[in-house]
Amino acid sequence: MKDYIERSGYDASLIGDDGNRFLIGNGYAGIRGTMEEDRKDRMVGITLAGIYDQVGKGWREPVNAPNFFYTCLYHQGKKLVVDEKTESHSQKLNYRYGIRERRTSWKLSEGIVTLTSRRIAHMVEPNLFMMEYELEADGEMTLNLSAGIDGDVWDIHGPHYAQIMFSREDGIINANAYIQNSNDKVCVTRSNHIRQKTKAGYEFMTVIESSHKEEQVSAQCFECHLSPGSPIVLRSYAAVFSSKDSNTPAKSCYGAITDLGWKDYDRLLKSHMEKWDDIWDRSEVVIDGDSEAQEAVNYSLYHLNIIAPRHKQGLSIAARGLSAQTYKGAVFWDTEMFIEDYFLFSQPEVARSFVKYRVDGLKGALKKARSYGFEGAFYAWESQEEGEDACSDYNVIDVFTERPVRTYFRDKQMHISSAVVWGMKNYMEHTGDTSLLLEGGARMVIECARFYRSLLIKRYGHQQYEIHDVIGPDEYHERVNNNAYTNKMAAFTVDYALEVVQMVRDLGPDAYDELKSQVKDLENFVSEISDLAPRILQKEPNAAGVIEQHDGYFKLEDTTPAKVKKRLKHPKEYWGGGHGVATDTQVIKQADVIAMLSLFHDSYTKDILERNFDYYEPRTEHGSSLSACMYAMVACKIGKPDLAYPFFMKSGTADIRGGGKQWAGLVYIGGTHPASAGGAWKNLIQGFAGLSIVSGQIQLDPCLPEHFKAIEFPLVLSGKLHRIKVTHDSTSVQLVKRLSKEYV
Amino acid sequence: MKDYIERSGYDASLIGDDGNRFLIGNGYAGIRGTMEEDRKDRMVGITLAGIYDQVGKGWREPVNAPNFFYTCLYHQGKKLVVDEKTESHSQKLNYRYGIRERRTSWKLSEGIVTLTSRRIAHMVEPNLFMMEYELEADGEMTLNLSAGIDGDVWDIHGPHYAQIMFSREDGIINANAYIQNSNDKVCVTRSNHIRQKTKAGYEFMTVIESSHKEEQVSAQCFECHLSPGSPIVLRSYAAVFSSKDSNTPAKSCYGAITDLGWKDYDRLLKSHMEKWDDIWDRSEVVIDGDSEAQEAVNYSLYHLNIIAPRHKQGLSIAARGLSAQTYKGAVFWDTEMFIEDYFLFSQPEVARSFVKYRVDGLKGALKKARSYGFEGAFYAWESQEEGEDACSDYNVIDVFTERPVRTYFRDKQMHISSAVVWGMKNYMEHTGDTSLLLEGGARMVIECARFYRSLLIKRYGHQQYEIHDVIGPDEYHERVNNNAYTNKMAAFTVDYALEVVQMVRDLGPDAYDELKSQVKDLENFVSEISDLAPRILQKEPNAAGVIEQHDGYFKLEDTTPAKVKKRLKHPKEYWGGGHGVATDTQVIKQADVIAMLSLFHDSYTKDILERNFDYYEPRTEHGSSLSACMYAMVACKIGKPDLAYPFFMKSGTADIRGGGKQWAGLVYIGGTHPASAGGAWKNLIQGFAGLSIVSGQIQLDPCLPEHFKAIEFPLVLSGKLHRIKVTHDSTSVQLVKRLSKEYV
Repeated sequence: MKDYIERSGYDASLIGDDGNRFLIGNGYAGIRGTMEEDRKDRMVGITLAGIYDQVGKGWREPVNAPNFFYTCLYHQGKKLVVDEKTESHSQKLNYRYGIRERRTSWKLSEGIVTLTSRRIAHMVEPNLFMMEYELEADGEMTLNLSAGIDGDVWDIHGPHYAQIMFSREDGIINANAYIQNSNDKVCVTRSNHIRQKTKAGYEFMTVIESSHKEEQVSAQCFECHLSPGSPIVLRSYAAVFSSKDSNTPAKSCYGAITDLGWKDYDRLLKSHMEKWDDIWDRSEVVIDGDSEAQEAVNYSLYHLNIIAPRHKQGLSIAARGLSAQTYKGAVFWDTEMFIEDYFLFSQPEVARSFVKYRVDGLKGALKKARSYGFEGAFYAWESQEEGEDACSDYNVIDVFTERPVRTYFRDKQMHISSAVVWGMKNYMEHTGDTSLLLEGGARMVIECARFYRSLLIKRYGHQQYEIHDVIGPDEYHERVNNNAYTNKMAAFTVDYALEVVQMVRDLGPDAYDELKSQVKDLENFVSEISDLAPRILQKEPNAAGVIEQHDGYFKLEDTTPAKVKKRLKHPKEYWGGGHGVATDTQVIKQADVIAMLSLFHDSYTKDILERNFDYYEPRTEHGSSLSACMYAMVACKIGKPDLAYPFFMKSGTADIRGGGKQWAGLVYIGGTHPASAGGAWKNLIQGFAGLSIVSGQIQLDPCLPEHFKAIEFPLVLSGKLHRIKVTHDSTSVQLVKRLSKEYV
Repeated sequence: MKDYIERSGYDASLIGDDGNRFLIGNGYAGIRGTMEEDRKDRMVGITLAGIYDQVGKGWREPVNAPNFFYTCLYHQGKKLVVDEKTESHSQKLNYRYGIRERRTSWKLSEGIVTLTSRRIAHMVEPNLFMMEYELEADGEMTLNLSAGIDGDVWDIHGPHYAQIMFSREDGIINANAYIQNSNDKVCVTRSNHIRQKTKAGYEFMTVIESSHKEEQVSAQCFECHLSPGSPIVLRSYAAVFSSKDSNTPAKSCYGAITDLGWKDYDRLLKSHMEKWDDIWDRSEVVIDGDSEAQEAVNYSLYHLNIIAPRHKQGLSIAARGLSAQTYKGAVFWDTEMFIEDYFLFSQPEVARSFVKYRVDGLKGALKKARSYGFEGAFYAWESQEEGEDACSDYNVIDVFTERPVRTYFRDKQMHISSAVVWGMKNYMEHTGDTSLLLEGGARMVIECARFYRSLLIKRYGHQQYEIHDVIGPDEYHERVNNNAYTNKMAAFTVDYALEVVQMVRDLGPDAYDELKSQVKDLENFVSEISDLAPRILQKEPNAAGVIEQHDGYFKLEDTTPAKVKKRLKHPKEYWGGGHGVATDTQVIKQADVIAMLSLFHDSYTKDILERNFDYYEPRTEHGSSLSACMYAMVACKIGKPDLAYPFFMKSGTADIRGGGKQWAGLVYIGGTHPASAGGAWKNLIQGFAGLSIVSGQIQLDPCLPEHFKAIEFPLVLSGKLHRIKVTHDSTSVQLVKRLSKEYV
């Protein structure tokens, strides 16, 4: 497999993009692909998982750690940075092993100095980060090297630290950063080990007092006398602990690195790479006939793996991963709908963490439902810890008035709870793991069903229940009635609640008693909902075979995204909401009916799938990264892989190509696209390779794009690792090994 | 009674305002207070009742007739107009007799010429209009006088005529104006009778060929040799008929005026004035202690009378009367809520026409309900002929983008049908006239009840019916649930439908059989709704005694109109809708809960009325002319007439003071305010004088503002004219006479 991407040269306009493309991470933190000497104006970010802060009325977002990789060079008192005049510069990411490397040469009066640095976020030790920083010169020269912690953290809606206290002791630099609006703190510790190669081998160097004081930086300074053939190498270890991980985070930081010396670097690098080898054994795809697609998918899987929570059960994946504070570091339905499947079939313990995260969020979901006058569990649209909803009632700024616009994502996107249930069902079905049921999972599903029941209304004289005043997946149409997707998912949730109760019954009377103690009025509830799902109105195909997205959708102006785009009076104006150009038209942001058909394709004929694809696709802007995948899935189900291919590639290349939208007004919205990454995997494996699991058995119904010769991929199922290969006319499944843990 | 208003001098900025203040009319047409020589740039308008046209996507609006009073003077080839340099100029309206007079003097090289004109819209002959136009000079001079028809009609969303054909024959000028988008036509005919006073008496003058051709004008021209003591007087008759009034409108026009000569003028003026005397016998109010209020109310009643349809049953009153094409000449709930009462107690046959108009509109209302998936009758928010709804889905222009904004006045202001029912009930109750019941009135009420029934929804597990997704009277809050006013009116409608059916039963079995033949499935429907009203959720006062306007209203930002106004970024931006400054606050446009309490004050304690007044008044912008009246009514009910007084005066002086909003961007929205006029009467008579009719008996519970000594007013009830006087501590009711017709 090709295992790296790189970029040469410097282009200021690519700083945002490259920060994402060259991201490294380990689920605990993501570290943007910026230079070691960069400061916050170049969007340096070390984004931490699961720890948030809110300043004033700004968005509540994850905090960034002080930059423990901050390292810079001074030549004759002047700091060396990368710009247009830099002699040469390149950045590279080895995505097989999560090693990000940069190489920069500066031409100085005495000759050329070349800096090569490599850094990793350790995949086995989540709190550990390592960097190797090497200087080589082609002439005699003296540079000062400053290696420490930069506390001037880049924030989108910060600053999130009330205070940062630095300390330096025995060559170890520490920063204790106190979060503004909580009692939390983030501690960062860095140790430096610097050596120079001489004829006698690597020699120690001494620390000098720096004359290069920078604001909010604490660093060690080294005077580097460089000459050809005598490079200087700095090895740094950094540890991060927050009060979420440890009662004594500063102590934990020290503990993690004080004992690490120069030589430990190689050992730790090895264990890191072994972990990656294991991941790729379960993940790497081979696409014979399309190396670009193969690279795109594997690169996408890299991105999923560097943000997968492994250090703690009960964390999930945010919409922009750990690539920045973008989108508030919140968990959306992306996880369940697009991301979970890849982990389910490679590292089910990670998928379990996603479900656990939702189980832990039940408290917030119950509270949210109550606050809107509903029963049960109304999950957060933008979920932070304990299911708190970070979504504001004003999620868009009007470009004309610069006023916040009332949006209904938080209060009307009712389908979110069903996505949570879908994620649970998916996990249960493919792992057979019933352990979550009594850990709150069954209760979660039941409370989601209770939520949908409380949404149901019956119009006078009508027989069926309806659901009014929602936003479906397509966010351009707010406050609609009987959204096809939402009604379908509501019925699904109610039905699945009944299944879940039966599963618990099947575990035996103790289990059932336990559930009864967890769930209010369980038996009555079950009997009340036993025939409820069929009484919820479902949108049926019309005479032309098309399912109406919501009541009245067909009466809206029938036009195209291109035509609607021409009506924009400002390039950044919002297309939806009260006044948007798409609002009163049939132009939709993303798959909606097609999302439903993608999930429930078994319930419809190929003909219906096709007619709906043909109807909705030309009306879809694909303005969300969640859209292309759904269309590609349905295109595969109607046997048109070549129609699916561009959608698949759109998902697969979202991050490797970059170039996505980076800014909304003054707010940074860039970052990686985990949902697209997961969607690409789903398209490839469940779409083109046609994987499905029927009664625990692997089934393959390949439907390859014409230019594909074969797809090979590993698959974990029921504790066994398989290797699968499909071609246009053959399929093979080979058992590689039984995995050590039950589901892993 | 003071019986005139006047204005001296010329101010270009008052042309719009004065067009309304000096309006004359007779229910068939309204003629704006402009000068005879004015053309459309000065907003000359002769607005016709009940005949509409729509051009392209512009608003459908009433047509204006060609200007049959177009008359001008030329001095040495130059047209005389009024401007800043004019020697003297004044305009006067005698509102006792509906005679509008103007007097203008121009200083010419030969001396001063003074023009005095008087014109009327005949109150007995609705198609007849008359003008006397007199010239007097203080020196010898020759002027040319041109007297004809100006076909260059002022339109707001025109032009509405495809073609205008002029003809002149035997001194009679005729214009046939063919409406753009229908087969309708408007015919206008004018005859001129001109005489000069000499020592021998009034002498005939001859017509000359004019050299003063103007585009789209057809006129007779007279050479006027003026000298002191020898004035020239032109008497003109004009007739208007449209194809709505006559199969042969041109012939009808000729027929109306060919036989009228110079001398008929005095006779016709007399009959016109006698009609006004009769109207004032039934209308004139005397307020001892407040001549300003007295004048304002009588002037308001003048305005109601000049637009009251008397020539044809089944016409109503438009929101801006006949003062222009403003607001599409459409009938709003203003008629039933604010205007009907005055007519009910003075000229009940006019009130009957309002109800008949709604009965005739049932067809449109049934169609509208069906088009939105409801049953029964959903009346037009902006009603034109046959109940067609002129209201657009885009009733507001965004000032920032200049794009139309989706508003929900047409589809969500569900309370309109209940206003129609309220109007019917009010008419029935106070006249005892059951004749409308089987003319469609009973069916109308029943279909309105059926409409509300079809709006009802029941949330799962809830016992009561709710009504979701409406706009209440306060238009700033769109798509709300359980608006207190709407839910109350829905229950009222359902109950009244049951009453109406009982009334028909009481008329005997034939009547009931007739109703059964008119109404689909009557008996089942009646039995189904027999216990429905109490099952519709009603908003009850909270612990503080305040009734929440709609679900969630109390959770909105609590602020004031003044504070919200400061947030405007453009003086003309719309406060409501998706993005308005008031939308997410408790600031409301107009009385909403207070409107409900005003109608149902008997059902609440004084304390509740007061607490709601105190809560809502500071949060109300009073941005609609319908607001002040409701607040004044409730203030009277809580025994605070001095609190009511400024609201009463706001309603009463809306037209006499003028100065209201004239333009919304480029669209003229000025005109008279019949609802305010009717509201002022209601405040005075039902508020301050405390009139109510209990079991057919006049009851008075006066509650006079401190500075009032007494109110005297006539009242028609059950075919009898009474004279009523109330003081702070006494009331008297005196029977004046029995009226000739049963209800008149």
